[in-house]
Amino acid sequence: MSYTSHNLSDTIVALATPSGTGAIAIIRLSGPKAIEICDAVFSKSLAEKDTHTIHFGTIKDDTQDVIDEVLVSLFKAPKSYTKENVVEVSCHGSDYIVQRLIQLFIKKGARMANPGEFTLRAFLNGQMDLSQAEAVADLIASNSKASHELAMRQMRGGFSDEIKELRQQLIDFASLIELELDFSEEDVEFANRDDLKDLIVKIQTLIRKLIDSFHLGNVIKNGVSTVIAGRPNAGKSTLLNALLNEERAIVSDIAGTTRDTVEESLNIKGIQFRLIDTAGIRRAQDQIEQIGVERTMEKISKSTVVIYVFDVISSGPKELWEDLDRFLYGSRALTANSKKIFIANKMDLNPYTKPEDYYREGLISEENLIPVSAKNQMNIGYLKDVLYQTVIENPQLMDQTIVSNTRHYDALSKTDQSLNAVLNGMNTGITSDFIAMDIRQALYYLGTITGEVSTDDLLGNIFSNFCIGK
Amino acid sequence: MSYTSHNLSDTIVALATPSGTGAIAIIRLSGPKAIEICDAVFSKSLAEKDTHTIHFGTIKDDTQDVIDEVLVSLFKAPKSYTKENVVEVSCHGSDYIVQRLIQLFIKKGARMANPGEFTLRAFLNGQMDLSQAEAVADLIASNSKASHELAMRQMRGGFSDEIKELRQQLIDFASLIELELDFSEEDVEFANRDDLKDLIVKIQTLIRKLIDSFHLGNVIKNGVSTVIAGRPNAGKSTLLNALLNEERAIVSDIAGTTRDTVEESLNIKGIQFRLIDTAGIRRAQDQIEQIGVERTMEKISKSTVVIYVFDVISSGPKELWEDLDRFLYGSRALTANSKKIFIANKMDLNPYTKPEDYYREGLISEENLIPVSAKNQMNIGYLKDVLYQTVIENPQLMDQTIVSNTRHYDALSKTDQSLNAVLNGMNTGITSDFIAMDIRQALYYLGTITGEVSTDDLLGNIFSNFCIGK
Repeated sequence: MSYTSHNLSDTIVALATPSGTGAIAIIRLSGPKAIEICDAVFSKSLAEKDTHTIHFGTIKDDTQDVIDEVLVSLFKAPKSYTKENVVEVSCHGSDYIVQRLIQLFIKKGARMANPGEFTLRAFLNGQMDLSQAEAVADLIASNSKASHELAMRQMRGGFSDEIKELRQQLIDFASLIELELDFSEEDVEFANRDDLKDLIVKIQTLIRKLIDSFHLGNVIKNGVSTVIAGRPNAGKSTLLNALLNEERAIVSDIAGTTRDTVEESLNIKGIQFRLIDTAGIRRAQDQIEQIGVERTMEKISKSTVVIYVFDVISSGPKELWEDLDRFLYGSRALTANSKKIFIANKMDLNPYTKPEDYYREGLISEENLIPVSAKNQMNIGYLKDVLYQTVIENPQLMDQTIVSNTRHYDALSKTDQSLNAVLNGMNTGITSDFIAMDIRQALYYLGTITGEVSTDDLLGNIFSNFCIGK
Repeated sequence: MSYTSHNLSDTIVALATPSGTGAIAIIRLSGPKAIEICDAVFSKSLAEKDTHTIHFGTIKDDTQDVIDEVLVSLFKAPKSYTKENVVEVSCHGSDYIVQRLIQLFIKKGARMANPGEFTLRAFLNGQMDLSQAEAVADLIASNSKASHELAMRQMRGGFSDEIKELRQQLIDFASLIELELDFSEEDVEFANRDDLKDLIVKIQTLIRKLIDSFHLGNVIKNGVSTVIAGRPNAGKSTLLNALLNEERAIVSDIAGTTRDTVEESLNIKGIQFRLIDTAGIRRAQDQIEQIGVERTMEKISKSTVVIYVFDVISSGPKELWEDLDRFLYGSRALTANSKKIFIANKMDLNPYTKPEDYYREGLISEENLIPVSAKNQMNIGYLKDVLYQTVIENPQLMDQTIVSNTRHYDALSKTDQSLNAVLNGMNTGITSDFIAMDIRQALYYLGTITGEVSTDDLLGNIFSNFCIGK
């Protein structure tokens, strides 16, 4: 399928709600024949109806069997999501009925939509730019306050306008430089080199700030993988329950929440921590279970945060250090970049424990050793604060523009490189045609973010990851 | 919760689409404050808007954070599903957003709807009678053409009107007879006994036809459990594939179909056959696997149809009969009521086989022995016809009114019994007060079908089986 030369003369159809049994399901049609196709099977004619109106009636198949009593919502071009004529059919939420209706619409001239094709059309018809279209998918996938806010901000414009404006200024310069090429024998300079440098520095300042925000954006969007390790009786489960306790109560009030996912997901100030339990680290020295231990080490080395739990009853400083040496050193686990938090648990049972006795240079200090009583919820709130600070070093950044999309990050990095090449070229007195080429590169990469430049491959990659019906 | 004294002054809210990630999700509000609650958080005011109109805007929480850009559909009482004010919010299909919105609506005064509560309100507000309300759930659960048609017919009125009318006539008689009781000392007869008998016979004729239709209705609604048995190398899988082949191709075209379910479900002329595979019947004589064989026998004894597959290469008549004796006789399997179809498979490899050699009195005959080549699709169409005829003995009945609901079947049976008591009473010259009592019984049972009579327990049983949001 070709995206840039995409055929907008088709009318597409898809189920827009999750499949499965529910009260209602929505089937969405978009395209020039959406109204005509619906009129062919619906008991009322939509042709003369106003946009944004709802009509109750029946849909019959060719043998005049009633397939369902439905509500049909009408959106007339350009006042719709895709800017095309759109009809949304709200039917009873049965897979069987949905299948019958979609088959009927296909018979009447629609075709099944590809993944993300409604949003693709919204983009191609100028309803939104590419980064906004991508944010639609992020919004649907969002599962925490911060990731939701990020997607919402991007969908509602985000940094698109700023990038578009800077790109336009760069285009103006590029035109002047390309004009110079036409007069190359005359050695004229239409584009003021100092102004160009100023602009490039201005652009680089902005995009470097955006590039730097990607680490935070990634944490917000994808959550923080957090491994909980330690001896089995150190109180890991109690700690997990203490951390999750509050969350659970809130979530179980609302229907349709998958408990399984929630129980291992902890939300701190809108940031999602994905808690990964690792049992059996105790037997690291046991040859037979070496494979299991290797897997745990693998998880630890890939995680962003490791919470190592020990209890102050059975582990004194000596035992802790020995455990750490035995389990973690020599593996990739401790040399990896993951941030480490040490939990001195069961403080209620041994209240005279001195945390500082456990400190170990370069590994355990006041900063990352937290005395806790998971059973009594002692210091659990503080642990959450530490977890948050560990990944969000500068909370102020949360309010700035944040890049969370790997594609945008790549494009921004490549733009930055091209702009560096422009600056270097000017400093070394390179000829205008090379400068023009590097500027064109920068323009290309900047343009891919908002979709002012797009290729079939690019659009294919983006929209094939959408769900069908969006 | 009390259903008959149900509190309609609340405004209820629920997710109306299946939970999970999708393009869009619909949250439904119903009740006197539906519009007010939406207005408190939506960027536009619905109060002055027309019914059946759609409005695009944003929903913000109390901290003015945008939760989502949504489309809001407005249905003003009584022109809605529940006959109350209804607002449907179409948001991005993220569980997180759905949770946030529902929490917000609850904060603004709505409460979570109970299962089926929207339809319960539709019933209590006179939008539909009870049997129609029940059909809504059947419609959502329908998964074949016939079960869909049955539910659709019932939802659109079905036998309700007929029953209501006969019940009204019976009420008129009851009134006259109860009037007689007031004048009991005067020995008057306001209700003509012959007319009453005629009416009762008329009612019984109708309801007995409905009672008789229940077997068919049950087959249509719940499908036909069909066990496929036989030796492992008899060609069961090939037969299964041959039977399912066509089906699969159709179904896999449409997104959202669960392959797993479909692959063991065969649809013949709108009737769903649930095919249950039974491996291992071969080792029935093996003591160790006795439990497994017992289970197979259990499945066979509970099934409506058994398809026994043997191949004409390794099983001559003697082997077949021996297998049947060994595997099936002595267990409950063959003495059970299930209908049996015998498949002489691999006819392509042994084309000179005479099917009549396999006949066995009372068990195998021309009627139920089908020579097949599953590999070459030989006689597969015929097998389907036989399967259909085996359960639908009289296809004409399909076009008549069919009862598929166990509750209706029970109520009709009890009505019939009460009417028998009335007739008996009149024949034996019983006093009017006893006749009146039996008529009241009949009226009660008839009334429960359409809901003219309903109790908390009855409504509780019916609506608690609905999904939330319907």
